[in-house]
Amino acid sequence: MAQRLSTDAHYKTLVDQYDTWLFDCDGVLWEGTRLIPGAVDVLAYLRKLGKSVLFVTNNATQSRVSYKAKFDKLGVEAHVDEIFGSAFAAAVYISTVLKFPKDKKVFVVGMSGIEEELREEGISFLGGTDPADNTLAPFSLEHWTPDPAVGAVLCGLDTAMNYTKMSKAFQYLLRPGTEFLATNSDSTYPTAHGLLPGAGACAAPIITALGRQPLSIGKPAGTMLECIKAKHDFDPKRTIMVGDRLNTDIEFGKNGGLATLLVLTGITKEHEVFGPNPSPTVPDFVTQSIGDLRALI
Amino acid sequence: MAQRLSTDAHYKTLVDQYDTWLFDCDGVLWEGTRLIPGAVDVLAYLRKLGKSVLFVTNNATQSRVSYKAKFDKLGVEAHVDEIFGSAFAAAVYISTVLKFPKDKKVFVVGMSGIEEELREEGISFLGGTDPADNTLAPFSLEHWTPDPAVGAVLCGLDTAMNYTKMSKAFQYLLRPGTEFLATNSDSTYPTAHGLLPGAGACAAPIITALGRQPLSIGKPAGTMLECIKAKHDFDPKRTIMVGDRLNTDIEFGKNGGLATLLVLTGITKEHEVFGPNPSPTVPDFVTQSIGDLRALI
Repeated sequence: MAQRLSTDAHYKTLVDQYDTWLFDCDGVLWEGTRLIPGAVDVLAYLRKLGKSVLFVTNNATQSRVSYKAKFDKLGVEAHVDEIFGSAFAAAVYISTVLKFPKDKKVFVVGMSGIEEELREEGISFLGGTDPADNTLAPFSLEHWTPDPAVGAVLCGLDTAMNYTKMSKAFQYLLRPGTEFLATNSDSTYPTAHGLLPGAGACAAPIITALGRQPLSIGKPAGTMLECIKAKHDFDPKRTIMVGDRLNTDIEFGKNGGLATLLVLTGITKEHEVFGPNPSPTVPDFVTQSIGDLRALI
Repeated sequence: MAQRLSTDAHYKTLVDQYDTWLFDCDGVLWEGTRLIPGAVDVLAYLRKLGKSVLFVTNNATQSRVSYKAKFDKLGVEAHVDEIFGSAFAAAVYISTVLKFPKDKKVFVVGMSGIEEELREEGISFLGGTDPADNTLAPFSLEHWTPDPAVGAVLCGLDTAMNYTKMSKAFQYLLRPGTEFLATNSDSTYPTAHGLLPGAGACAAPIITALGRQPLSIGKPAGTMLECIKAKHDFDPKRTIMVGDRLNTDIEFGKNGGLATLLVLTGITKEHEVFGPNPSPTVPDFVTQSIGDLRALI
């Protein structure tokens, strides 16, 4: 049973108990471009107490560097080495686990965030934001020469998704041995004005045509936690994951042996935890908003 | 167990047994723009014997009228009232089963074939080929005013699929009571140069974001057969469905109580019927190609 936090004593105990705080961003710290009230103060307070603050996002539309600019714009203190995105984790996975040689390439269904992280890891790629692949003109296999060096397809949220990119990705994946990766499988993407299709929805045409699922790198998969462990020392027993989604953030924390705090400022609604038919994924703690911790300041 | 046809006697018995011949087109009569050898002769022969010849296609990119032009171009005799497409069946379903009033609209994720058939049935629509919805420019809910008259979303193969159209369709479907329809759910689309993502793949982003399936109108659903029955008198016992796909054509025939003939010039490979792990969908008859019936001429 999840513990509902509401009193100063609850928040005090929570803060005392955990040294490393992993935060999801969309739906926790902000919604689109609108800050969650109190988020900045609470993050500053945790830092003042000497807590380690890290940001773990499935958003792969931006690299860590450009994501940092978003923090800056919203006035939230963050450093690039505190930011872990699924595009970064995917690039690290391709270079360290798949050990892609220099002459192998990744076909990208996604945006500049993925491209920047692949470039940073020294991985060659095509597709992505290439104007030739961002077109609504008819696509024909007759006039296309596939690149024999492609050894993986990597999908993320792609607001320029189109039939040409989907068709090429599908064709590459029909070749035996091509790895099928996704930055994350979030079905929707929360904005300040409502939900839009997420990364999982952008990969769906390929999944459907192909009849098989990609390996998803982002939360709730453990690959992201491996990336964090490689850069930061932390004790899982004194680490808490704060998120708004049961099937990504909370699952991620539980899979990694971390404590979990669900906030209700994003995707998950209260009845999914405390209603008559609760989700099987049970967070350790639930509070309305990260801003609730202002009670301690 | 499917009967493998190979001798003149087999083909003679088959032709004697059935008066109405329903043909799938892609993969049976042609592959993309390449005719299957012998198809024209066999169709002409069946007509000469006084057989009723009908064309039943899940292809919703073209209306019956523009599909007829494809038959003409390839030199295959066909008449508009012999052609049944999933776009036509969807339009008929919306007007006769859903009984859409004049002031309700359909949001189309698809191409001109769907628009032409909706127009023919007097159904208002938006989306589809509207230039405003065929863009790779960023989409934001903040700058979009949904049309309150939209009562259904209809998806078909859309080679101009994009994030704006997917997002609008998804948003309309989040409104209670919006009908979610698909012309068909084919995962792939066969062309002369290989497979491309099909109508099911084009609807997949919406299905994934929404977490529910559309009502699919085309084969193997019975809606298409209802459409045919409304226009043509036939005895199911003396009717045969000829197709290249087990999970659409052959299922469709079996669901409708028709005999079924699988040809191997399209999607289905021989081992799926006669291999060690055959598909649970068993056609009555199998032959290499519709051209095999030339043996009788």
